[in-house]
Amino acid sequence: MTDFSTIKRFLIGKPFPNRLEVHERLDKVRGLAIFASDPISSNAYATEAIMTVLIIISTGALQMTLPIALIIASLVFFVIFSYIQTILHYPDGGGAYTVSKDNLGTIPSLIAGAALLTDYVLTVAVSVSAGVRAVSSAFPEVHTYRVAIAVGVIVFITWMNLRGVRESGTVFAVPTYAFFAGVLLTIAIGLARYFGLFGLEPLPIHTYDPAAHPAAASPIAGFAYIWLVLRAFAAGCTALTGIEAISNGIKAFKPPESINAAKTMSVMGLMAMSLFLGISFLSTRMALIPFEENSILSQMTYTITGGGFLYYWVQLFTMLILFMAANTGYQDFPRLSAFLARDDFLPRWLENRGDRLVYSMGIITLAFLSSLIVIVFQANEIKMLPLYALGVFLSFCLSQVGMFRLMGKIGKVPPGESVFTGVTTIHYESGWWWKRIINLVGATGTGIVLVILAVTKFREGAWIVVLAVPLLALMFRGINGHYRRVSEALRTRNLAPGDLQETADLVIVAIGDVHRGSLRALKYAKHLGSDVRAVSIITSEKQRQNIEERWQRFPEITEGVELVLIDYEYRDIVDPLIDYIEHVNNVEFPDQLVTVVVPQFLSHREGEQFLHNQTAGRLRRALSQYADLVIIDVPYHI
Amino acid sequence: MTDFSTIKRFLIGKPFPNRLEVHERLDKVRGLAIFASDPISSNAYATEAIMTVLIIISTGALQMTLPIALIIASLVFFVIFSYIQTILHYPDGGGAYTVSKDNLGTIPSLIAGAALLTDYVLTVAVSVSAGVRAVSSAFPEVHTYRVAIAVGVIVFITWMNLRGVRESGTVFAVPTYAFFAGVLLTIAIGLARYFGLFGLEPLPIHTYDPAAHPAAASPIAGFAYIWLVLRAFAAGCTALTGIEAISNGIKAFKPPESINAAKTMSVMGLMAMSLFLGISFLSTRMALIPFEENSILSQMTYTITGGGFLYYWVQLFTMLILFMAANTGYQDFPRLSAFLARDDFLPRWLENRGDRLVYSMGIITLAFLSSLIVIVFQANEIKMLPLYALGVFLSFCLSQVGMFRLMGKIGKVPPGESVFTGVTTIHYESGWWWKRIINLVGATGTGIVLVILAVTKFREGAWIVVLAVPLLALMFRGINGHYRRVSEALRTRNLAPGDLQETADLVIVAIGDVHRGSLRALKYAKHLGSDVRAVSIITSEKQRQNIEERWQRFPEITEGVELVLIDYEYRDIVDPLIDYIEHVNNVEFPDQLVTVVVPQFLSHREGEQFLHNQTAGRLRRALSQYADLVIIDVPYHI
Repeated sequence: MTDFSTIKRFLIGKPFPNRLEVHERLDKVRGLAIFASDPISSNAYATEAIMTVLIIISTGALQMTLPIALIIASLVFFVIFSYIQTILHYPDGGGAYTVSKDNLGTIPSLIAGAALLTDYVLTVAVSVSAGVRAVSSAFPEVHTYRVAIAVGVIVFITWMNLRGVRESGTVFAVPTYAFFAGVLLTIAIGLARYFGLFGLEPLPIHTYDPAAHPAAASPIAGFAYIWLVLRAFAAGCTALTGIEAISNGIKAFKPPESINAAKTMSVMGLMAMSLFLGISFLSTRMALIPFEENSILSQMTYTITGGGFLYYWVQLFTMLILFMAANTGYQDFPRLSAFLARDDFLPRWLENRGDRLVYSMGIITLAFLSSLIVIVFQANEIKMLPLYALGVFLSFCLSQVGMFRLMGKIGKVPPGESVFTGVTTIHYESGWWWKRIINLVGATGTGIVLVILAVTKFREGAWIVVLAVPLLALMFRGINGHYRRVSEALRTRNLAPGDLQETADLVIVAIGDVHRGSLRALKYAKHLGSDVRAVSIITSEKQRQNIEERWQRFPEITEGVELVLIDYEYRDIVDPLIDYIEHVNNVEFPDQLVTVVVPQFLSHREGEQFLHNQTAGRLRRALSQYADLVIIDVPYHI
Repeated sequence: MTDFSTIKRFLIGKPFPNRLEVHERLDKVRGLAIFASDPISSNAYATEAIMTVLIIISTGALQMTLPIALIIASLVFFVIFSYIQTILHYPDGGGAYTVSKDNLGTIPSLIAGAALLTDYVLTVAVSVSAGVRAVSSAFPEVHTYRVAIAVGVIVFITWMNLRGVRESGTVFAVPTYAFFAGVLLTIAIGLARYFGLFGLEPLPIHTYDPAAHPAAASPIAGFAYIWLVLRAFAAGCTALTGIEAISNGIKAFKPPESINAAKTMSVMGLMAMSLFLGISFLSTRMALIPFEENSILSQMTYTITGGGFLYYWVQLFTMLILFMAANTGYQDFPRLSAFLARDDFLPRWLENRGDRLVYSMGIITLAFLSSLIVIVFQANEIKMLPLYALGVFLSFCLSQVGMFRLMGKIGKVPPGESVFTGVTTIHYESGWWWKRIINLVGATGTGIVLVILAVTKFREGAWIVVLAVPLLALMFRGINGHYRRVSEALRTRNLAPGDLQETADLVIVAIGDVHRGSLRALKYAKHLGSDVRAVSIITSEKQRQNIEERWQRFPEITEGVELVLIDYEYRDIVDPLIDYIEHVNNVEFPDQLVTVVVPQFLSHREGEQFLHNQTAGRLRRALSQYADLVIIDVPYHI
């Protein structure tokens, strides 16, 4: 134990007392870094995701990238506005789960919770795998070890997070800000060159050349055309993933929590969208063509900067921020699962805070599940992507519908009064009706995206999520039922002292032989009651003689103890012992607690236990199934 | 538990009582089949093994196959003679281990035991892998799954053996006899045709054509030549592996055990050697050339039989007997490890007989270890072969030296008297001196083979065995030391009743909350002693209020119990609980047994335990490290 503790201290750091909880919270700078890494990192691929679909139609269709990006950005605006409302109205956090619980009922809240938890596991798996792909593009020789590297990165992020939220915030802040600053500077130079400002060399303006990338043999039109545009739109929506993160983790911020969280969320939205629109504008104006070997972001940066220091800066931090995006999952999964555990929908230990005041078990569960996904999908994030984003949009939609309802309630509160909804306290707000409209638009928009995502990606893997989310919600209900039964059984409200079982004045001592260990147990047993029986299962005449002979030698201990010898023809003595104990319990002392003493041989050296028959341990386990047996381990060490 | 028992009954069969032990033994027909499958199966490759080395010199050198085979056969004669003597003088079995223990001392006996156990694990791994190779020669598409198939075959053989020795003997007898009969008939036809008997078409007699297979560029001579001949000899000695098997398992035979075992051994030697010499004679007379795609046995059978029914019969049972050869390992490993366990050199549970009176744990251990070897070596028996046979020859040599000494002792016993050596009782035998000479020749011969094997195969893997055998012997000694210390600690010889620790009149009950479960535990604790303390670790003000409020509500139970509330700033409550218990134990009741009650919540449904904090279980495990604490589990079921 000591060795393990020392290693744990070294790895995790010294434990924090409860009172330090507030001290360990995040300021806005760190908070932005660890919550924004996911949405900001989406810029590494979101524009490209749109273009990769559009080019199936024709190079000319790439012109639609910017309009699609604008639609997505306005959707982001609505969603962020709604989430800020959520943060202000539900300052304890829990995001879509809490909103749904308060406004839509238990089942929708469980669906929102299941959808988000699924997506956070995928966030980690997808981000880490994408990061490993970026590494293996640079160093192809590591491709063989990609699964091991991905799992290694998960272990590293897990370790950092177990050391505490402030510490991991500090470590992970650098790549987020460095990526943002690098890309923003690139966009600024690009725009300056595009508009010919500051005397910079103007950026060459191209239009798409249909000859360079011939369209499909027969021109795509009609339904197929609309289908592809919708798919491009759905693909671009990956830029939205992660923007909900802050709403789950409000309590990660220093007080005033909800104000700080709301401010951070606004800044995050602004940062993410300025990059998204900047990249989409410049890359279509420069008529970039997506191809696999060189990403759009890399092409754009190279063309604008000419491949200097800034280009390598952006390349390096693109890779790092992809790893960091996984960290957003580490912020939300443990917090959200703690919310569900607090409401008895997940195992209670997910609510326990570890040595460093983080939800350690949630962190470890996430690490385990995402490693599993990485191993199953062999760290191939392309195959995971169809499963991704569906959960987020389901939770977006549920949360907007919930906020739509809440704003309706708020409109009905008489001004000057306050109403408790069961989760939060609401007051009349004069602007409730226009906020309600924004929620409605957001709900409709995200609902449409949800349907598009589910339909376009169904066969490639989205069906797994469509299946998994309701099953998870059912599992949450089942867990809740269990906890209800337990609390019912433990309830003391109507307990009369007579309801508790009486204890029989009988102590059964299971012995295999008469030696110091069993004599010690017998002596202890005599201290417990007057009717003490030493029971031994006899499998050979020699054993019987041995026991009887030694029994006589210690009258001070064996006096008053009944020696019960049971002949047995087989070799596994656990069964007849249990038969005897069951018989005594049912026939002689029905409805009473019967005490069984098991002398336990214990060794100080590791592994020596392995040299002995595990009879005592097996007996213990078998007896622990009985409700009216009390098991006593009398240890004997050598 | 019930489900598991049902499955076990279905797979293993109903348990046999101890008295059926003799009934479950083997008659000579079954005994021959299961012990002889290894030596008889060696004929599938032994001649070829010699020829594969000789052809490196030249095709002409293949002429040496028959002389080498004759030398090996005479070595077999000596070894079998010695082992029959061993069986008759050590009728309890244990073979080389017992002989060495009685005549050479503990260390040589442990080396013999380690060598044999190592070799039995390899027997299983090599035989099964060779069988899988035979299958994948016929069906190349299974090659990808060879490791899985090999492990599957091991599981099957394990299953059969767990069902009992008589039952597995019946199942496995068919391939052994079918193989023997098929090859013997082929040899008989071959000899009849060679000598032109019965009017059969004479076998075409060839001599080796040096042009067909040109010798090495420069003729091999001098040391290299001798080296290759020695290697050919060593390779052919694989035919000897397994002939010792019966000497370990005498008690597997029906009474009179040693007579039956000795008779079976003679017949087995005769059968194995008639095939070996027959194959070696015919294949060199027919001038067969070994090549990888078609084994010598297959070539010979095809030439003699012309490829009819008999050819396919031999092919099929060659494959099956290779699998069956593994079964010899299953006869000897469990028995030999039970011998070592009985003498406290291996864990005692290896001596336990299972439901069907076989050494189940030994069988399972063998299955585990040989599967491990198969997986590590990827079911490639060619890579395992250099490790193989070394252990057998080491045990051969030790056993012959031991018998040499025993015969010396026998020569010194005054006629008409008997002397107990410590293991067996010996009488004067008039032929002691010539038996002694045979033992000496056998010891020298096997010793020479041992050295040749170790030297020629050292670099290809024999070094592993050279290293492993002494390490295993050391491990056996270490285990023995442990058991000696335990029996010393449990010894009752000089035990005075006052030596046993007194029990403190104190019961500590660890509680997290006041509910039916903890009240039940408190009620039980009050029955045990007068000083009862309920200890709870307080981590929040709310928890303190809860406990104090409920404590007041059950005066009938809480009266007379001291409520100890300990404030704690961290979250893992196991540490402060242990600190308190340690403090009480060391300061208030030094040198006395202190009782700790742990209320244990138990659920009947599988897996529900997983939903709860494991605090009770962790507390139990931590407390069980203390020699002077008695732990009481008071169960509470819902």
